[in-house]
Amino acid sequence: MCHVTAAVETALNLIGIFAFALSGALMAVQKRMDIVGMAVLAGITALGGGVIRDVLMGDVPPAALRNTWWLLLPLVATVLVFFFHPVVARLRRAMLVFDAIGLGVFCASATAKALAFGMSPVASVLLGTVTGVGGGMLRDVLAGEIPSILRRDTKQYAVPAVAGCILVVLLDAVHQQGVWVQALAAVGICTWRLLALWRRWGAPAPR
Amino acid sequence: MCHVTAAVETALNLIGIFAFALSGALMAVQKRMDIVGMAVLAGITALGGGVIRDVLMGDVPPAALRNTWWLLLPLVATVLVFFFHPVVARLRRAMLVFDAIGLGVFCASATAKALAFGMSPVASVLLGTVTGVGGGMLRDVLAGEIPSILRRDTKQYAVPAVAGCILVVLLDAVHQQGVWVQALAAVGICTWRLLALWRRWGAPAPR
Amino acid sequence: MCHVTAAVETALNLIGIFAFALSGALMAVQKRMDIVGMAVLAGITALGGGVIRDVLMGDVPPAALRNTWWLLLPLVATVLVFFFHPVVARLRRAMLVFDAIGLGVFCASATAKALAFGMSPVASVLLGTVTGVGGGMLRDVLAGEIPSILRRDTKQYAVPAVAGCILVVLLDAVHQQGVWVQALAAVGICTWRLLALWRRWGAPAPR
Repeated sequence: MCHVTAAVETALNLIGIFAFALSGALMAVQKRMDIVGMAVLAGITALGGGVIRDVLMGDVPPAALRNTWWLLLPLVATVLVFFFHPVVARLRRAMLVFDAIGLGVFCASATAKALAFGMSPVASVLLGTVTGVGGGMLRDVLAGEIPSILRRDTKQYAVPAVAGCILVVLLDAVHQQGVWVQALAAVGICTWRLLALWRRWGAPAPR
Repeated sequence: MCHVTAAVETALNLIGIFAFALSGALMAVQKRMDIVGMAVLAGITALGGGVIRDVLMGDVPPAALRNTWWLLLPLVATVLVFFFHPVVARLRRAMLVFDAIGLGVFCASATAKALAFGMSPVASVLLGTVTGVGGGMLRDVLAGEIPSILRRDTKQYAVPAVAGCILVVLLDAVHQQGVWVQALAAVGICTWRLLALWRRWGAPAPR
Repeated sequence: MCHVTAAVETALNLIGIFAFALSGALMAVQKRMDIVGMAVLAGITALGGGVIRDVLMGDVPPAALRNTWWLLLPLVATVLVFFFHPVVARLRRAMLVFDAIGLGVFCASATAKALAFGMSPVASVLLGTVTGVGGGMLRDVLAGEIPSILRRDTKQYAVPAVAGCILVVLLDAVHQQGVWVQALAAVGICTWRLLALWRRWGAPAPR
C-alpha cells in the first residue's frame, strides 16, 4: 500500500474514533456522570466495536491495544467535552455528521479486514456491521438505555451499515479491493445515514 | 462419527438456534422494536451463548462465524415473526418447548466440546451452562431487562442446565462419550425444564 | 519466584476473588434474586474482570477457567451469603474494605501480567484498570443498574485504580518488578480508595 493511501486510512480511522469518543463523552454529560464516567463511555464507544471484531476474529490483542494513539484519543475527547460541552452539544448536527462518518469508516474498513482474514462473505458483513454499531450499543447499555439501534424511533442506522458492508463484499467478489473500495463504501454509508436523518427514513416495523 | 449421528447433531443444533432466534425476535416485537431490532435480538439470542463459549475456549473465529447457515437462520426466524407474530405469539407454549429443546441441546453439546478441548470438569460444566443460558441473558440485557434467569419468579432454568452438564461430565469420567450421551443429557434437561414450568418449581431464595 | 512470594500472591488473589464474590452475592440478595442469581452475580463479579483481561490479551482459556478453586470460591461465597446474609450485610464496612483489597490486588497483578505479556505501558494501565473494575461493571449491568463507577455520587474508585496501575508501569520502566511492586501498588490503591470513602472524595464533574 502506498504512503498516501495508508495515510488516508489512518486519518479516516482517527476521525471515526474521535467522533465516536465525542458522542460517548456527551452521553455521559447528559447522564450527569463525572469525568471518570465520561472517559469510560468515550473509550468504549470509540473502541468497543473494533475490539469485539478483533476478539471474534482471533486477532488479539485487539488493534486498539496496540495503538497508543487510539487509547489516548478518547481521553482528548473527554477533556474537550469536559470544558466545552455546552459548545459541543450545540454542535449537535455536526456530531451526527461525525458519527455518520465514523459509522461509514468503521464498517467499510472492518469488512475489508474480515475478508482479508479469510472470513466468509456473510461473516464479513456481520463483522463489519458489528464494528460500526457495537461501540454505540455498549455505550447505551452502560448508560442504562436500550441501544438506540434497537429502538423503533431511530432513523435508519444499521440498514446503511449492512448495505455498505455488502457492497465491499460484492466488489471483493469481482476482485476489487483496496482503499478506494473502502472509501466508496464509507461515503455511501455516511450519505445514506445522513439522508435517513434528513428525510426521516425509518425501518419497517411489524404491525 | 458416522453419518447418522453427525446428521442428528446438526439437526439438533439447528433446532436450538431456530428456537432461540424465534424467542429473540418475539421479545423484540413485545418491546415494539422495528425489523432491525428483531434481527439483532434473534441473532444474539441464538448465537450469543456459543460465541461466548468459543471465545473463552480460544476456538476463534467462533463456530457461528464459520457456518453461514447459523448466521442466516436467525434472519429466517426474523422474517417469519415479522409477518406472522400474532400466530407465533399464540404458540407461546410451543415456544417454551422449543426454548427448552434449545437449552438442552446447547448445554449438552457445549459441555462435550469443552471436555474434548481438554477443559477441566468444573470448567466444562460452566462453559456448557454459559452456552445454554448466555444468549438469553444478552437478549434480556439488550432489551433493557434484568436477565430472566436472575429473577426470583423464574421457574428452574439454570438448575436443569447445570445438572445436565454435570451428567455429561460424569459419564465422560467413566469413558462414555459420543452423541448418545449428549442426547440423553439434552432430553433430561429439556424434560426437567418443562416439568419445572408445569409444576411451578422455583429455586430456593434467601429469606 | 520463591515459594513464599508465590504463596503471598495466591493468597491475595483468593482474597480478592472472595471479596468480590461476596459483594456480588449481596447485591443479588438486595435485588431479591434466588440462589441461581446469587451464584451468577457472585461468579461474574469475582471473575469477570480477569476474564475480560485474558480474552483481550489472547491468554485463553482465561486463568479463571484453569483454576478450579477460582470457580468454586464464588459458590462458597454464595452459600455463606445465602444463610448468613443479615450478618454479612451488617458487615457493610468490612465489605467495603474487602472490596478495596480486591480492587488493589486485581489492578496491581493484572498490570504486571500485561507488562510481562509485552503490552505497551498505556495498554497495561488500561488492562489493569479493566481487571479491577470490570467485574463490578458486569455485576451492575446484569442487576439492571448503571455501573456504579459511572455514577456521579460514587466516591473515587477508578481514580486510585488508574493511579496504582501507572505506579506499576513506572516502576517497571526503572526495572523494578516482582511481587513487592505489586504489593506496594495494591496497598496504595486500597488505602487511597478507603481514604476516598472516609473523606468523601469524588471525581470532578463538568458543570
